[in-house]
Amino acid sequence: MQPLDPTYFGDIDPPQRLLMGPGPVNAHPRVLRAMAADLLGQFDPEMTGFMNQVMALYRPVFGTQNQWTMLIDGTARAAIEASLVSLVEPGDTVLVVNFGRFGLLLTEILNRLGAKIETVSAPWGEVVPLEAIAEAIERVGPKVVATVHGDTSTTMAQPLEGLGALCQAAGAYLYVDACATLGGMEIAADRWGVDIVTGGLQKCLGGPSGSGPITVSDRAATRIFARRHVEQGIRRADIVDGAGPRIPSNYFDLAMIMDYWSDKRLNHHTEATSMLYAARECARVALGEGLDARFARHRKAGAAMTAGARALGLTVYGDDAYRMTNVTGVYIPEGIDSEAVRTMMREHFEIEIGTAFGPLQGKIWRLGAMGYNAMKHKVLLTLGALEACLKAQGFSLPLGEAVPAALAAWEAA
Amino acid sequence: MQPLDPTYFGDIDPPQRLLMGPGPVNAHPRVLRAMAADLLGQFDPEMTGFMNQVMALYRPVFGTQNQWTMLIDGTARAAIEASLVSLVEPGDTVLVVNFGRFGLLLTEILNRLGAKIETVSAPWGEVVPLEAIAEAIERVGPKVVATVHGDTSTTMAQPLEGLGALCQAAGAYLYVDACATLGGMEIAADRWGVDIVTGGLQKCLGGPSGSGPITVSDRAATRIFARRHVEQGIRRADIVDGAGPRIPSNYFDLAMIMDYWSDKRLNHHTEATSMLYAARECARVALGEGLDARFARHRKAGAAMTAGARALGLTVYGDDAYRMTNVTGVYIPEGIDSEAVRTMMREHFEIEIGTAFGPLQGKIWRLGAMGYNAMKHKVLLTLGALEACLKAQGFSLPLGEAVPAALAAWEAA
Repeated sequence: MQPLDPTYFGDIDPPQRLLMGPGPVNAHPRVLRAMAADLLGQFDPEMTGFMNQVMALYRPVFGTQNQWTMLIDGTARAAIEASLVSLVEPGDTVLVVNFGRFGLLLTEILNRLGAKIETVSAPWGEVVPLEAIAEAIERVGPKVVATVHGDTSTTMAQPLEGLGALCQAAGAYLYVDACATLGGMEIAADRWGVDIVTGGLQKCLGGPSGSGPITVSDRAATRIFARRHVEQGIRRADIVDGAGPRIPSNYFDLAMIMDYWSDKRLNHHTEATSMLYAARECARVALGEGLDARFARHRKAGAAMTAGARALGLTVYGDDAYRMTNVTGVYIPEGIDSEAVRTMMREHFEIEIGTAFGPLQGKIWRLGAMGYNAMKHKVLLTLGALEACLKAQGFSLPLGEAVPAALAAWEAA
Repeated sequence: MQPLDPTYFGDIDPPQRLLMGPGPVNAHPRVLRAMAADLLGQFDPEMTGFMNQVMALYRPVFGTQNQWTMLIDGTARAAIEASLVSLVEPGDTVLVVNFGRFGLLLTEILNRLGAKIETVSAPWGEVVPLEAIAEAIERVGPKVVATVHGDTSTTMAQPLEGLGALCQAAGAYLYVDACATLGGMEIAADRWGVDIVTGGLQKCLGGPSGSGPITVSDRAATRIFARRHVEQGIRRADIVDGAGPRIPSNYFDLAMIMDYWSDKRLNHHTEATSMLYAARECARVALGEGLDARFARHRKAGAAMTAGARALGLTVYGDDAYRMTNVTGVYIPEGIDSEAVRTMMREHFEIEIGTAFGPLQGKIWRLGAMGYNAMKHKVLLTLGALEACLKAQGFSLPLGEAVPAALAAWEAA
């Protein structure tokens, strides 16, 4: 074995960055401390008690009474794949509401599952009108409609009020990826009539990536349990296989995962205990603050960031009417070196702002203010630092205007 | 929203259990503390630096020089599925070396992937002789051979020396699930000639479940990159798709995951930062102790537990010659209420011991001593408590013999 350089491999000691991009963001200190709690056995009554608490805590977070409200052990993307692989049967027609990179991700995952994919799209920077979705449902007769709520790639939030009723009238299930908005903008799974909603911890919930909260309606659970196929080696008389086609993934088999989170406690994976502690603490922090107060805080932070960016002379990206509250896109000014600004922000101010993907790469920056970072002082510090960096890079801009504009917008929002 | 009972949903405060079952076990305190470090952006140079350190740290842990040594964001089971879904193409013949519940899990996952499965099996409590595997390879001509190293369901460790050469001679790839032994028994990926090895943190590495270390040989990586299919929305000129069939999972697509862990830094999932910190600290603790010293400590703990169990009058399960060093199966004595003993162990002593699966359910207990718990005092405390509980439940046993027998075995091993 090679000797390892003890300096390079020293104690964990990351720099204290302020993460004001599209996520991940800094975790709430209570969440980080919760992960330091000692572990428990998988079926210890204290452990299954914590699992039940997580189910109860995430129901209000998702705006639902769904029994099946739990965690997927992986990142937000894992929760998306678990939903689609369990809900969609090969050959099903799925209508994807596509208005950004994460709509394309849904298409990508569905393609691999053998779904027949139809899309109803909006240009990046806009959302898809409900009437266009209704028309597409009528036209293609989907078994499942899948959409993102807030797509950080474009900073747009798709309105979802009324979509569930449309789907149910057409006999379709509705899936929503709320990774980027859960805990920061209202998610009303029951009122919207959504069958499965998934999220992540690393955006508005102020935790680390690595656990994907999920809620599943009873009618979606019925469809999924029809595909239950308990693995060899742990079959039991009290858990009966369904007649539907087997779910093509074992790890993402929601039927077995629901059986694990039920009183049946079917052995599946070993629950990621520290991440469960983190998810539990994220929800406690959010519910302790109060969801309405939390949404208002994100709204104020978004309004302040947007107003401050405009006062810097920057042009804000996308449709004002449908902007996510927790991330703001701004055009990189002509002639300004994007990476030079980001590097200066990071190296002098320890602040991270985001770049962009695909058609927006090199065109916009994304300024986030979410979870533990959706705070007045963090927005103001970011704007002040950005002003200094833009000036240093030769951008001609009004000085000293961003902070008061942001403060006024914070108060007014 | 319903008001939440603040007592029930109070600060995280799990009881301080000593976890002496087949895993998960208590994490090393340094690992728990490492997770409390603040987060970083996904492509922050400090973050990608930590990713590179993890790659370097896990090479000696796996006994390999493989470039592709990294983490899968999920539990150990996620790393298994990522390996098989990326390495095995639908219709490939896969030979599963099956000697317990986790061999059946490989079969289960492969079934869902559309592999043609052949098995070479041993009865539970034994391992599969190398000659039997050689004969099966000859007979079925597999594209992939898949086996578990240590199967906690039976406490047996399959010898793997020489298996890689057999596979290579037959043009097959070799996959090994080392979840239950990595960091506790030698894993020699390169010397054994294994193409992919996966593990977990929650056994001998003394961390929480939720991150799956993996190493991939260059020849396996070549096969996997031939199936590369970069998702829409993030395609780049410098990353070219392969001609092979698309990997049916996006989350478990090792081609994209390797591109994420490479200098290309292709965006895929958002790396589970706190779990990465945990995995890094697990490896630092293991390498700091020294792998040989660590294996010796597990050997001593296993020998002590086994000798102590025998001194209690218990019959040890399985073939002595191939026992895992970190978990010992003992028959539940005739007439003794298994759950009464386990409950008394937990409620009076705060010690957890394990039950069993499938054909062994209700027949054996599994006594683990792994990772941070493979320590002399923890083995002795467990044996002393078990003696008291067995006596209380009416088992007639020699008193005061287990501790000295365990101590003698610890010294001799």
